[in-house]
Amino acid sequence: MYPFTALANPNIAFIKYWGNRNDALRLPANGSISMNLDGLETRTTVHFDAFLPADDVKINGKIARGAAHARVSKMLDEVRALAGIHHFAWVESENNFPIGTGIASSASAFAALALAATKAAGLDPSPCGDDATSSYHPGALPGHRPGVLPGGHRLDLAALSRLARRGSGSACRSIPGGFVEWAAGTGDADSYAVSIAPPEHWDLADCIAVISTDHKPTGSTEGHAMAGTSPLQSARVDDAPRRLDICRHAILNRDFAAFAEIVEADSNLMHAVMMTSRPPLFYWQPATLAVMQAVRAARAKGLLVCYTIDAGPNVHVICTGAAAEETAKLVGSLPGVREVRLAKVGGPARLVKNPSTNPHEI
Amino acid sequence: MYPFTALANPNIAFIKYWGNRNDALRLPANGSISMNLDGLETRTTVHFDAFLPADDVKINGKIARGAAHARVSKMLDEVRALAGIHHFAWVESENNFPIGTGIASSASAFAALALAATKAAGLDPSPCGDDATSSYHPGALPGHRPGVLPGGHRLDLAALSRLARRGSGSACRSIPGGFVEWAAGTGDADSYAVSIAPPEHWDLADCIAVISTDHKPTGSTEGHAMAGTSPLQSARVDDAPRRLDICRHAILNRDFAAFAEIVEADSNLMHAVMMTSRPPLFYWQPATLAVMQAVRAARAKGLLVCYTIDAGPNVHVICTGAAAEETAKLVGSLPGVREVRLAKVGGPARLVKNPSTNPHEI
Repeated sequence: MYPFTALANPNIAFIKYWGNRNDALRLPANGSISMNLDGLETRTTVHFDAFLPADDVKINGKIARGAAHARVSKMLDEVRALAGIHHFAWVESENNFPIGTGIASSASAFAALALAATKAAGLDPSPCGDDATSSYHPGALPGHRPGVLPGGHRLDLAALSRLARRGSGSACRSIPGGFVEWAAGTGDADSYAVSIAPPEHWDLADCIAVISTDHKPTGSTEGHAMAGTSPLQSARVDDAPRRLDICRHAILNRDFAAFAEIVEADSNLMHAVMMTSRPPLFYWQPATLAVMQAVRAARAKGLLVCYTIDAGPNVHVICTGAAAEETAKLVGSLPGVREVRLAKVGGPARLVKNPSTNPHEI
Repeated sequence: MYPFTALANPNIAFIKYWGNRNDALRLPANGSISMNLDGLETRTTVHFDAFLPADDVKINGKIARGAAHARVSKMLDEVRALAGIHHFAWVESENNFPIGTGIASSASAFAALALAATKAAGLDPSPCGDDATSSYHPGALPGHRPGVLPGGHRLDLAALSRLARRGSGSACRSIPGGFVEWAAGTGDADSYAVSIAPPEHWDLADCIAVISTDHKPTGSTEGHAMAGTSPLQSARVDDAPRRLDICRHAILNRDFAAFAEIVEADSNLMHAVMMTSRPPLFYWQPATLAVMQAVRAARAKGLLVCYTIDAGPNVHVICTGAAAEETAKLVGSLPGVREVRLAKVGGPARLVKNPSTNPHEI
């Protein structure tokens, strides 16, 4: 058994995931649409080792303990059960973006872990061949190109996305590449993400306004569990199919005006639910509101920009590639914006060379 | 026919009115609860005059024209129809608080106009007696003490509140005194406000944080008409009876903790609907959010304060009388707060002496 290293990008949701039908399986209350963020990445290496007395997990150079360790081991348990192995694993994970800037790292982390762990467990019968990664190319759809050759332990993209989902819901969207839709599904078997368009389909960028904050916001897992306490959540969920249709069509037609309206509306709807939960969750800071205002004003003047905000104070300002430079300048000039990070549309989770001595690595 | 002058306070809603079942009659989507704001007032004098060629309306020293004039004349038409008279009227209205500080003036304006105009039109058979005003004392309930003596044109408090409502919905709540509830009702006949407790029932204060803004927010009339475009409005409305019950009991029991939680929740719900309308309505400024945060933090430390926000950037910080001084100091120290105004619980709309020569005035 050899170590394998996988890379995954975080993703930013245009139609948001908030609230579960089933918290344990992370079956979402509604479907969601996102794009992967190129350049921001988690790299995770997994090596199952017969001599380890327990899973040994290192995240960004620090030994993981407690809840963080347990969450990784839970996914490794699933992989061990699928592969029929009993070895503990050595796991090392590194982000190239700082945790605590409010860019969600659990999506890329659990996507990279799911891919590296399944490969390292031998679930793919062709772990050293090109075929193992070709199905993770941009635009690949689960079912269209299974991730493994026939005859071995099959683990296609859908199964990988489902595995990632059980680790952290939005991680399922970091498995396929480009623009991605996660169907709510009817149960564990059909709740996974597929690519609806490859990265090159539409030249968009995410200009992330990192907002200064002293607050430690409520974590997503806890927040999802509170969604149902808002009297508005079921109305938001009931309306989701309409928003998904509009957003999907806007992406496929590269219709920025329609895209901007539905993306901002969906973000506003999620925060409406958050701030009417019990207790209320306020993720916006004064500077968050200032960036939102500036973005609406700039769009009214013709700049192709819109905003979307996750469970934190940062504003993801989505713009066309042509507007990225002007957008970054505008956003960076606003008071309360600590730094600006620019990301283009990212590819799928994929295997990468690792610095170990694995002779079979790609 | 003599001139009469009436005084009315604006009110601040704890359970908010947003959206109508019937825009023309201003029948609200849901019931609401408010308190009148003592010290802030509109004084309006009405004089029906056989020699006037048209209604002559002056508001804060300026001749009213266009929509403002038409809205006043519409109420005068109702009063003329009720009284069976055809004279035009001279109307002069003055606020003691500046319009444009975002303290709603239409509630006190239409409450004062309704009372002055009905008196001036002779709808009360005892316009010069004390009985004419005694029923507007704190805690008076419609039906319990009709506003007029029997035998003439009856116009009780309920009818006066309904008349004010048709001028500006929330004006119906500025007719009775103290803590007031406006029942949504089933139609024009039973949609009016009653006092649920007199001003002296509970020593509360409204510490109004006036926020600097360059924006002219969307007016309430236009905003109400947009409420139904939010996918969240019907859920907010469906949940209103629960909130009304909690708020009413909290007021009657002087339970500040329960009061604070439901008042903030209701404000958040209204703004959730506003910001998810199409197009979205954002009334909050960055400083609005900063005041909200400071209020929650102060309450967590034991200060008896909570916030509520109307269709504008100002924050109404509701506190106990004992906490008013500390609250005003705290709020006034926050960046972006231009000034602080303090109001205690106000009484009902009432007739006052006017500077004219009316020999029958009270």
